[in-house]
Amino acid sequence: MAFSRIARNGLRRAGGTFGSYAEKGTACEGVSNHKWSSPFLKNVAAGNNLSYISSIRKANHASFWSRGIRGTAHYQFPNAERILDESENENDEPSYPGLGATKPGEMPRVVVLGTGWAACRFMKGLDTKSYDVVCISPRNHMVFTPLLASTCVGTLEFRSVAEPVSRIQSALATSPNSYFYLASCFGIDTDKHEVYCETVSNGGLPQEPHQFKVAYDKLVIAAGSEPLTFGIKGVKEHAYFLREVNHAQGIRKKLLLNLMLSENPGISEEEKNRLLHCVVIGGGPTGVEFSGELSDFIMRDVQEQYSHVKDRIRVTLIEANEILSSFDVGLRQYATNHLTKCGVRLTRGVVKEVHPTKLVLSDGTEVPYGLLVWSTGVGPSQFVKSLNVPKSHGGRIGIDQWLRVPSVEDVFALGDCAGFLEQTGRPVLPALAQVAERQGKYLVELFNKIGKQNGGKAFSAKDVHLGDPFVYRHMGSMASVGRYKALVDLRQSKDAKGLSLAGFISWLIWRSAYLTRVVSWRNRFYVAVNWATTLVFGRDNSRIG
Amino acid sequence: MAFSRIARNGLRRAGGTFGSYAEKGTACEGVSNHKWSSPFLKNVAAGNNLSYISSIRKANHASFWSRGIRGTAHYQFPNAERILDESENENDEPSYPGLGATKPGEMPRVVVLGTGWAACRFMKGLDTKSYDVVCISPRNHMVFTPLLASTCVGTLEFRSVAEPVSRIQSALATSPNSYFYLASCFGIDTDKHEVYCETVSNGGLPQEPHQFKVAYDKLVIAAGSEPLTFGIKGVKEHAYFLREVNHAQGIRKKLLLNLMLSENPGISEEEKNRLLHCVVIGGGPTGVEFSGELSDFIMRDVQEQYSHVKDRIRVTLIEANEILSSFDVGLRQYATNHLTKCGVRLTRGVVKEVHPTKLVLSDGTEVPYGLLVWSTGVGPSQFVKSLNVPKSHGGRIGIDQWLRVPSVEDVFALGDCAGFLEQTGRPVLPALAQVAERQGKYLVELFNKIGKQNGGKAFSAKDVHLGDPFVYRHMGSMASVGRYKALVDLRQSKDAKGLSLAGFISWLIWRSAYLTRVVSWRNRFYVAVNWATTLVFGRDNSRIG
Repeated sequence: MAFSRIARNGLRRAGGTFGSYAEKGTACEGVSNHKWSSPFLKNVAAGNNLSYISSIRKANHASFWSRGIRGTAHYQFPNAERILDESENENDEPSYPGLGATKPGEMPRVVVLGTGWAACRFMKGLDTKSYDVVCISPRNHMVFTPLLASTCVGTLEFRSVAEPVSRIQSALATSPNSYFYLASCFGIDTDKHEVYCETVSNGGLPQEPHQFKVAYDKLVIAAGSEPLTFGIKGVKEHAYFLREVNHAQGIRKKLLLNLMLSENPGISEEEKNRLLHCVVIGGGPTGVEFSGELSDFIMRDVQEQYSHVKDRIRVTLIEANEILSSFDVGLRQYATNHLTKCGVRLTRGVVKEVHPTKLVLSDGTEVPYGLLVWSTGVGPSQFVKSLNVPKSHGGRIGIDQWLRVPSVEDVFALGDCAGFLEQTGRPVLPALAQVAERQGKYLVELFNKIGKQNGGKAFSAKDVHLGDPFVYRHMGSMASVGRYKALVDLRQSKDAKGLSLAGFISWLIWRSAYLTRVVSWRNRFYVAVNWATTLVFGRDNSRIG
Repeated sequence: MAFSRIARNGLRRAGGTFGSYAEKGTACEGVSNHKWSSPFLKNVAAGNNLSYISSIRKANHASFWSRGIRGTAHYQFPNAERILDESENENDEPSYPGLGATKPGEMPRVVVLGTGWAACRFMKGLDTKSYDVVCISPRNHMVFTPLLASTCVGTLEFRSVAEPVSRIQSALATSPNSYFYLASCFGIDTDKHEVYCETVSNGGLPQEPHQFKVAYDKLVIAAGSEPLTFGIKGVKEHAYFLREVNHAQGIRKKLLLNLMLSENPGISEEEKNRLLHCVVIGGGPTGVEFSGELSDFIMRDVQEQYSHVKDRIRVTLIEANEILSSFDVGLRQYATNHLTKCGVRLTRGVVKEVHPTKLVLSDGTEVPYGLLVWSTGVGPSQFVKSLNVPKSHGGRIGIDQWLRVPSVEDVFALGDCAGFLEQTGRPVLPALAQVAERQGKYLVELFNKIGKQNGGKAFSAKDVHLGDPFVYRHMGSMASVGRYKALVDLRQSKDAKGLSLAGFISWLIWRSAYLTRVVSWRNRFYVAVNWATTLVFGRDNSRIG
């Protein structure tokens, strides 16, 4: 079955150009007793091998179908060794409708999992004369995440930060052999070069879930990450994340509901204070920007439009360490002062558990809240965890310097879901839009080059020279802190020297920079219009739905 | 209890200026044996009295709390006669927190139920130097209904047609004694001059539902209507109505979902055709405008953005009689031809029942559908049905020519929920935005006049001369039919002569007229911007949420 296939792929197909490993495993016979060769490890330190190997072993014990890549531990199938034969008996596997492998003469098919920054930048640049493209994602648009916090309070409208994929890559909509599928991928067979998917739906089809497969020539995994909850009880049930447009919609609805509920007669003082207490967990850029937007909203719109309760509404930002820890120390201090001046209470604390109307800190303090926004960073998604491939530090899909998943052929990973394997000697890059976009840009240039050299088809890129590996240069960080102020940190890394500034000019830079980054002219226009109308008319407070 | 109170109000308080009735009932002792006097029946035909009386009697048998107005049939409370005494024992009634009656020296309080056309036009004009205003409604915005159909396919954005009430009447947000409550009214005690409400919420409060009361000096009921389903099985479960912004959101999500689902591999031909079959029930202006918008969407955006399925999508409009029956016959013919040309299939039929994926017509025809929009007119809401007051033809709250509910004091009703009592000799007006808005305008002028003459307080308007009664003059009807074409019918009634035109010029009139009617400059601006961007960039097809 699939795990053995992945192993075999690694064994059979990897070119072994740059280096090779011998690994003798015991947990997995399909892998053990074979020479594991991999093309990607030029400058690897010998000591790193062990962790790499152990991650393969660990992955080996998960069970069929629960895992993403269809991997099955051998002890569940005593005869599994048999399927290493070429004559595989497929009858015991579910059979799916779907797109079969491309035929000779047809264009190679790139399958892209995801519609985030990495996937969309990749698709945007793809040469559709060399490839057909199939994009599979549970959402049909890219979210312009840096501006998402602004939509929660109505500074921007939701659709101004959502970009339909069919506008990013029109072939998805118009080319006869390119498709967008609103679906989640639940499995990959790297041997057969197939992905297995399940439609996202809400009672749209008589038989649900509807499952299908798509064969790929090249697979690009850009499936993103999930918010980290550190296993804290109640977070998923009661807190709002801030990663998707519908999260922002939920926050806006809840905020307006709480403002209106607290005006109702007969609500106790204590209850009013609770309803109007907005708590943000996590002092990264998202948490800080959201707090800044909230304080803007409170200082202008709540004052004007909710005068009965305007003096009760409060924002507390709870962070275990320091806010904006990746920023220059001067900027951190500026942000702390500015937020405090705007009425945001900054608190050090670690959340122990979350209840429907209060959270408990590790020192036992109880914090009643009306709205709780959770923004403590991201980690590998269930899908990524389920994939039976070597992982990077932090549990992401392990990639080499060309963004390949080196244990299998024709599979690439990028964005938040991917990290350099330890053996590459490179650090895992932060989960930033900037990184994802740069990787997308790099990879699509690689693909277009491969495509031109007829390396687009499955198993056909072995002899194509890939050129320079991906190198990431950090362009700096920005964060708005509300009230027409922002931070701009142009240092290339946390400990480097470089320009950093804060204040109104930074805020202008922040707005201009993001306005130029918005993908389409349509949304660029709408973002500008939203900003202008917010300035003139204030924020819209209709509670819809 | 309350019913007797309503009765008593009618008996004790009605001025009897214009006429009086003697009614001898048997079902309700609290009412019978009293002389029923009413100020509103100047030109009433004697023959009408009976139906009026019988509607009171009928109302008498409903039970406590299930009814809106807290009316209790006497047979349930054998000692009910006792509570006609002034010394009422209130201990057996639930007690609510809330706003008590206004004190002498305080401004009179107008309570408005609803945030539709009538309520908002009323509130917009209210002299807040004469009145405090409390608005109670389950939504905090007015919907610009004539443009709602355009939002379903993305021609306009949702927020462009939603107008927050606090922008319509800023006193709601800023005046210390005026409030907006996000709540539903479930009962009225016309004797105590109190309304009973329940907050709209979604787990926002620890104890739900949260109930409260608000005492009024004057009550304005503008609570709207509900879509008519004629008791047809499955309509409420499976069809979309088109009355609120979230209905339009639902339709847009479903339409985009079906377009995407039908592209998935492995979907049968039959299933694809079903998914892409949009069925509209009801050929009134809403149904026709929605069909027109759909065909616009299909002819431009689906062609461009869903090329794999573009030839499958179909629109069927099912109407039992004739489409646009209130329009001039020439316009009807124009609309029929135009819609047919745009690919909308017009079918005569009566729906018998609705299943999740198909509907059955009365002749047994089965019609599979992917999206079903139900737009067959409106009727009295559950709340209106529950009110224990005389009703007009069609079951609306019965009003006189001054929009008063003549059986009780200080209560007014307008918009879709109100209809002239038969005794007024006037026809019940159609449920149109135009009617509601005109009534709101009339009533607020009446209120401002009463207010200036110190008649704002409860029971204090007896001696105020009301002036001219409300007279409705129909300004004509408009409907867009898609592809830059519309109908404009300027005849004052169905059988009158007058100007009517159809085509592109009408479409320009239609757009300009609605643009000027949009309540705020903000939304006027956004509607114009949306129209412009739709023209330039096409419609946005992100499926959010």
